Amino acid sequence: MTLIRQLVNQDEFVGFYLLKEVEVKQTNATPPKDYLDIVLADGTGELPAKLWDASSVDKEAFFPMGLVKVKGLVQTYRDRLQVKIMQIRPAKPEDGVKLTDFIRSAPISSTELIHTIKQVIADISDQEIKDIVTFCVGKVEEKLEHAPAAKSHHHAYFGGLAYHMVRMLELGEFICKQRPFLNEDLLKAGIILHDIAKPEEMVAQLGIVSEYSVQGKLVGHISMASNWITEAAVRLGIGTESPKVLGLQHLVLSHHNLGEWGSPVQPQMAEAVALHFIDAMDAKLQMVEDALNTTPDTEDWTPFIRGLENKAIYRLKF
Amino acid sequence: MTLIRQLVNQDEFVGFYLLKEVEVKQTNATPPKDYLDIVLADGTGELPAKLWDASSVDKEAFFPMGLVKVKGLVQTYRDRLQVKIMQIRPAKPEDGVKLTDFIRSAPISSTELIHTIKQVIADISDQEIKDIVTFCVGKVEEKLEHAPAAKSHHHAYFGGLAYHMVRMLELGEFICKQRPFLNEDLLKAGIILHDIAKPEEMVAQLGIVSEYSVQGKLVGHISMASNWITEAAVRLGIGTESPKVLGLQHLVLSHHNLGEWGSPVQPQMAEAVALHFIDAMDAKLQMVEDALNTTPDTEDWTPFIRGLENKAIYRLKF
Amino acid sequence: MTLIRQLVNQDEFVGFYLLKEVEVKQTNATPPKDYLDIVLADGTGELPAKLWDASSVDKEAFFPMGLVKVKGLVQTYRDRLQVKIMQIRPAKPEDGVKLTDFIRSAPISSTELIHTIKQVIADISDQEIKDIVTFCVGKVEEKLEHAPAAKSHHHAYFGGLAYHMVRMLELGEFICKQRPFLNEDLLKAGIILHDIAKPEEMVAQLGIVSEYSVQGKLVGHISMASNWITEAAVRLGIGTESPKVLGLQHLVLSHHNLGEWGSPVQPQMAEAVALHFIDAMDAKLQMVEDALNTTPDTEDWTPFIRGLENKAIYRLKF
Amino acid sequence: MTLIRQLVNQDEFVGFYLLKEVEVKQTNATPPKDYLDIVLADGTGELPAKLWDASSVDKEAFFPMGLVKVKGLVQTYRDRLQVKIMQIRPAKPEDGVKLTDFIRSAPISSTELIHTIKQVIADISDQEIKDIVTFCVGKVEEKLEHAPAAKSHHHAYFGGLAYHMVRMLELGEFICKQRPFLNEDLLKAGIILHDIAKPEEMVAQLGIVSEYSVQGKLVGHISMASNWITEAAVRLGIGTESPKVLGLQHLVLSHHNLGEWGSPVQPQMAEAVALHFIDAMDAKLQMVEDALNTTPDTEDWTPFIRGLENKAIYRLKF
Amino acid sequence: MTLIRQLVNQDEFVGFYLLKEVEVKQTNATPPKDYLDIVLADGTGELPAKLWDASSVDKEAFFPMGLVKVKGLVQTYRDRLQVKIMQIRPAKPEDGVKLTDFIRSAPISSTELIHTIKQVIADISDQEIKDIVTFCVGKVEEKLEHAPAAKSHHHAYFGGLAYHMVRMLELGEFICKQRPFLNEDLLKAGIILHDIAKPEEMVAQLGIVSEYSVQGKLVGHISMASNWITEAAVRLGIGTESPKVLGLQHLVLSHHNLGEWGSPVQPQMAEAVALHFIDAMDAKLQMVEDALNTTPDTEDWTPFIRGLENKAIYRLKF
Amino acid sequence: MTLIRQLVNQDEFVGFYLLKEVEVKQTNATPPKDYLDIVLADGTGELPAKLWDASSVDKEAFFPMGLVKVKGLVQTYRDRLQVKIMQIRPAKPEDGVKLTDFIRSAPISSTELIHTIKQVIADISDQEIKDIVTFCVGKVEEKLEHAPAAKSHHHAYFGGLAYHMVRMLELGEFICKQRPFLNEDLLKAGIILHDIAKPEEMVAQLGIVSEYSVQGKLVGHISMASNWITEAAVRLGIGTESPKVLGLQHLVLSHHNLGEWGSPVQPQMAEAVALHFIDAMDAKLQMVEDALNTTPDTEDWTPFIRGLENKAIYRLKF
Repeated sequence: MTLIRQLVNQDEFVGFYLLKEVEVKQTNATPPKDYLDIVLADGTGELPAKLWDASSVDKEAFFPMGLVKVKGLVQTYRDRLQVKIMQIRPAKPEDGVKLTDFIRSAPISSTELIHTIKQVIADISDQEIKDIVTFCVGKVEEKLEHAPAAKSHHHAYFGGLAYHMVRMLELGEFICKQRPFLNEDLLKAGIILHDIAKPEEMVAQLGIVSEYSVQGKLVGHISMASNWITEAAVRLGIGTESPKVLGLQHLVLSHHNLGEWGSPVQPQMAEAVALHFIDAMDAKLQMVEDALNTTPDTEDWTPFIRGLENKAIYRLKF
Repeated sequence: MTLIRQLVNQDEFVGFYLLKEVEVKQTNATPPKDYLDIVLADGTGELPAKLWDASSVDKEAFFPMGLVKVKGLVQTYRDRLQVKIMQIRPAKPEDGVKLTDFIRSAPISSTELIHTIKQVIADISDQEIKDIVTFCVGKVEEKLEHAPAAKSHHHAYFGGLAYHMVRMLELGEFICKQRPFLNEDLLKAGIILHDIAKPEEMVAQLGIVSEYSVQGKLVGHISMASNWITEAAVRLGIGTESPKVLGLQHLVLSHHNLGEWGSPVQPQMAEAVALHFIDAMDAKLQMVEDALNTTPDTEDWTPFIRGLENKAIYRLKF
Repeated sequence: MTLIRQLVNQDEFVGFYLLKEVEVKQTNATPPKDYLDIVLADGTGELPAKLWDASSVDKEAFFPMGLVKVKGLVQTYRDRLQVKIMQIRPAKPEDGVKLTDFIRSAPISSTELIHTIKQVIADISDQEIKDIVTFCVGKVEEKLEHAPAAKSHHHAYFGGLAYHMVRMLELGEFICKQRPFLNEDLLKAGIILHDIAKPEEMVAQLGIVSEYSVQGKLVGHISMASNWITEAAVRLGIGTESPKVLGLQHLVLSHHNLGEWGSPVQPQMAEAVALHFIDAMDAKLQMVEDALNTTPDTEDWTPFIRGLENKAIYRLKF
Repeated sequence: MTLIRQLVNQDEFVGFYLLKEVEVKQTNATPPKDYLDIVLADGTGELPAKLWDASSVDKEAFFPMGLVKVKGLVQTYRDRLQVKIMQIRPAKPEDGVKLTDFIRSAPISSTELIHTIKQVIADISDQEIKDIVTFCVGKVEEKLEHAPAAKSHHHAYFGGLAYHMVRMLELGEFICKQRPFLNEDLLKAGIILHDIAKPEEMVAQLGIVSEYSVQGKLVGHISMASNWITEAAVRLGIGTESPKVLGLQHLVLSHHNLGEWGSPVQPQMAEAVALHFIDAMDAKLQMVEDALNTTPDTEDWTPFIRGLENKAIYRLKF
Repeated sequence: MTLIRQLVNQDEFVGFYLLKEVEVKQTNATPPKDYLDIVLADGTGELPAKLWDASSVDKEAFFPMGLVKVKGLVQTYRDRLQVKIMQIRPAKPEDGVKLTDFIRSAPISSTELIHTIKQVIADISDQEIKDIVTFCVGKVEEKLEHAPAAKSHHHAYFGGLAYHMVRMLELGEFICKQRPFLNEDLLKAGIILHDIAKPEEMVAQLGIVSEYSVQGKLVGHISMASNWITEAAVRLGIGTESPKVLGLQHLVLSHHNLGEWGSPVQPQMAEAVALHFIDAMDAKLQMVEDALNTTPDTEDWTPFIRGLENKAIYRLKF
Repeated sequence: MTLIRQLVNQDEFVGFYLLKEVEVKQTNATPPKDYLDIVLADGTGELPAKLWDASSVDKEAFFPMGLVKVKGLVQTYRDRLQVKIMQIRPAKPEDGVKLTDFIRSAPISSTELIHTIKQVIADISDQEIKDIVTFCVGKVEEKLEHAPAAKSHHHAYFGGLAYHMVRMLELGEFICKQRPFLNEDLLKAGIILHDIAKPEEMVAQLGIVSEYSVQGKLVGHISMASNWITEAAVRLGIGTESPKVLGLQHLVLSHHNLGEWGSPVQPQMAEAVALHFIDAMDAKLQMVEDALNTTPDTEDWTPFIRGLENKAIYRLKF
């Protein structure tokens, strides 16, 4: 079975893939003919595909986010690869393939990531901070198993958000050792809470964001997390204006650093400054690592990366 | 008694004034002498003043925000007017002067302004919106009687915030009549809530802001108001993610329009667009009106107004 | 007869429409075939359409901005609706349809709008201001009946400019009542003059702008209006540097507020500040109202609105 | 007689100078003493000066922009040179000194500059362009003899505007030879008209701008020049929308290149692009030349130049 | 033979052209057919072209940057001209056509341009500056014969860089005469060195840039030229921190004026200020001249020019 | 002996201090009197001081950066502390005080820091990279013992640059472990080279920068380091365009990330992205740590920190 990333022009191939998108459209022939406009995907990438002359059965048989077996030919259309589908059918139980094998995922399993996060929470020494963090994580616990960290910017895959948290926690632990004046409870709590509302800000399935939720657009994950901390305080009987509550809200509200990047206040606590840079460094380096991993070894340059001033990354060889 | 605004160079005067600031300082003579560095104020303006050769009694007798009787001489120092104090004493009960006569105030009494605001709240037809607004106003009810709308930008005087609200409500009522597709309940609630946390964001006395509170710096009035709406919902048993709660939070969060002006989300409801422009127009026109009112009639130009791209306003005469 | 806005995929329909654009093009078949590339429109919207296999007669029969009777089928092409034309012929006198029924118009008739504007001019108490305004309006009187207020930004339809003026005049009247220090003559004149050169800045037919005029590009409507005021003064024997002339020019020149928005000077008169905000508020709220009106009731979100930081507007329902 | 630029700390000197500013002020001694706060100037620079213990006669004897004979001592006050005046008296006729010897001037005489400009106008081949230019120059003919080109930015001295025009005309002539597709009449006219309204935008005496005029603030020299071209056309019977009028207005309106620099339209004619760069290059190189000329030879770096991104210029020696 | 620029819709033509790009692609017919997707060019412009039904021989016969004889038909596709190729064959020796006749070139021959540049170098009076300039020019001597000055911005044709240098040297000579305080050696050297690394920054053939080199992306032509000057100094035994070396590096490093335009330092020498404006003026005026030259005489407006704030240029006629 | 940081208003004290600045000035008394305007400093801060009535001996006895014994009185002048000097004399050998005890220093000794840096260089596995780094470090080896990392922004003290390098190397080592795809040789070399030219860009003594050098202003440390790498390559016989040389130059040139922050190219290698964030994070967290350390424990807020968007940092206590 050929991985999407390995397909080149003129390849004929047979294999199982994720039917990421499918829509019935019409050619502009006379009379117009129906065809299926498809996006095939696996964990290594995705490609547009066409099933010309779709029958009525075809039009009923396929739905987005299902698995399919495809026989196809790779062609070039407007300078980009596109699959002409020869044969296609939905996967059957006896094929023994499962969805999670066909999506892009964090390199560590969700189970392990969430275990690590819970361990870090358990190690928070201040009880009120621990309770607030627990309350907020509880709001999205199920979704955290698969939520990506962003729509396309960085960590945009199954478990991406939890993976982002865990790498940031590692970096945070190092920084706290290097600079002991930082309050480790606050920094850990800030790392876990900073993007905690993202699973409710975006509608995602299998790590793929389809759109922003109404709440995500009208309120945004930064203010949502601040509101959750207030809700936690009210429900847990902690003063809504106590230093801990204000501190955690400040960490969340300021982590994008500037107003034009979405933060209504700028970092004004040592841990808030640290949180911003830990977040930025982890996100940017992951973009670089992911871009290098998904660029064929024969290419010296990755594609342009929007989150890096739209620059491509070069593989220096010597 | 001469008003501050009317004093000119070489005037000798006697009168009661507010001692807005007072500090003991030392000249660089040898040996150094103590003097009192003072700011005198009344409802029409303020002037720096010096009491040279301050006695030990003088140094104990005066405190900021008290009323004093002053005999003084107006001089010019570095191109600006400054009062040389001849005699000064604290006001006594028998002088019959009271603080509120010496501060800058909104042109309508606080009592009347707050009555109007309460009337508008009473007229909100949706019970949940009315309850949330009532809860949030309740948090600052006492301070609303005197709170200014800003530190110096606009409506920076006793009752300024309530006055800003009431003028905006008038404008909002007109706009709702002109464009009936707007939801009047939402717009009124948005007007009342948009700056409702300002009395807790800034520390003010008699309409004069001395500094921002810790909460004001770390969280800011926009996010504070959003958090209060969440707290109201939790305490009132309204769903924290119900459309009304999201809508009110959106109005508050987006009213500065752009991220660089402090709004984490941009207006995405008709009422939010209206709220932003009603707020901006009322604030800017009030700056203009106040600048013209406090500029002597003999001057064609007001001073530069920071909130108006630092432009001065011209009195066109014809 | 089905309105454009109501057509959905697979609809077959017959009706009269405006042929907004029509061009002969060729398919890339061998040999190439001629077809008509068409835009059909009515007051509710517009759709691309194709007449495949256009005969020589077809190629001669149709011209832009004419009315046609069409039998068509709605299809989807590249995710957007497109009409496949089955039959098409020009409208005939006996069809009893008239152009103005098929274009997007202001909700109030041009006759009524212009009557209102003239009434306001008649009420200006200062004779010189009234004469200058009359002179400038006289330059575009005929075009004012149909001119839009912009190419696509806001009020982009038949009578849009006059409608924008009238709503601004209503708002201006309210503001003058709320803040009596404003000079009502100046504000009204400013409202009428601020966009008065737009009908000469853009080439429009039936409320649809096809392009900017040479004068529009080289001088722009803001400087054109300033020049017209000078011309009026010279021709009417009013001093070109008299306060009224400078005041009116300042209102026009500063109404975009900032240099990067096209204003060579910033507002420095109270009425200029008011004019800018009245203009901005009316334009933005009309964008919102028009976007909501042209979005199907089944949709929660309007399309993105370029003039509103490219945000979509949400219909909050509760 | 020592030139201002040559004075150093501890110098005692006697000489004639321009009394650029003079004001009666008071020390904060008890009782306060009157002193004269003065700015002394000549063509090479200016210095603050104090006449301590000013007598009633002194206070009446001096007025700004008069010539005086001074005996003084140079001191250092807050890191800057300042003159302590020992003796001072107004210049008398028999002293044989004249004002224009004491002000900063263009290196070429006004008479010669204006002669050159008139010669260039005479050489314009298109009669209508020549007439419009003549009309506009006629409006400021007298002031052109002394007007500076700016308040402080560049060419801020007696005859500076005419000097700027003449150097630009030289450069324009070269460019027209190098690139013959440029229309020389338009470019010359554009150079002469681009700043022609500056003498009315600013109030200047002896090449020193004291403030902007009301018209300068409300309309600005760019729009004033555009209005003058309209006035010229009306009075000369040239069509106000003829290509020549639009072309000249475009040159004037676009010469600051960007909206944020004050141009309501951007250059859209070849001559307008040339005009902008000729203007910019001449202004910036003159700033550099003037800064180098007024910096003592012993200094390697000029002071910071605001118009050059606030950079200082280095004298490279090798 | 018809020039590309003269072709209009429905023209049938025969002639020789440059095959600027060629690629085998497939139609989306069933089964897909191969066709050649081609860009035809000559010195006056370029057009897309298609050879439908390409045979196996066709697919082997053509390569980019070769000359071909074409019989074609001009059609309109998506509002743009496109050539349908009837017949095509590679040019043969007996056709007597040569590549350089079919590319866009500077209006002066490379031989002449390079001769002029060498003459200027020979006239530099300082021996060390002359040696450094000679060393750097030596690095790209061969490429200078054909290198363009940019990928698409300005002077994007055969010999464009040398042409840009020569016109700048003319302008520089004039400026040095007008302002004798400028050091002519430094300014000339700066003009020759400022873009000297461009032939190594971009990969170009026949004046057409295909891409940036790795060095061009990672280091950029500005820092490359600075490094070359260091290399020259080391190899020529000139002090790497001597004033001349620093001066030349400063000229090169600062010539883009601002950090956001790629200059790590801002101009701080008189010659650096002059160099920046000479460079900018020559580049912009050449954009204008080239745009006017390649726009049909029947068009009043050129296309939008990206390097001129995306404005089009108008041909004023009177 | 009282530390500068501990002095409060009205304190009388005796102790040894660093005479950071000293200048003879004159009072504006008649006749003027000479006084010494002084800045006293130790490792904890600095204060302005005055020696009134300076004798001729006093005026000769003191020079900047010398140690002095002072008896003084702390006063308030214009809201800031200032020392009135009672007695002052230069320190003598028998006082047993040494300069380095009175300056602000990195918390780790220079010897130790430089030892660590050399150890890291020794561990670079690629010989050419090691040689280039060694060459560049060799250029500033002596100055590295005391050079600060910036004039005032961050690490502005004795040994600050070496301290910045060492902390960055620790962080770089952690990141390379966390993300093994990074090339550790390149990242370490980039960290050591990124600011290596700073000791030549600024003129510093005892960790205090007095000004930028000519080379620092005209070329800047970023381009200087790039030039040094070229020089190293030439002298060591390594290809000036070899991948290693380009890679190291890219790391140095891009480390400020954006053009407006001084980088002529943006990061386009994984190690360059990492370098930028390691540099930014270390600089910002050190600013925070230093601000907290030098703010009295009784203060909740540090002063505003220019390098942190001019925000103050809050000490959250709970």
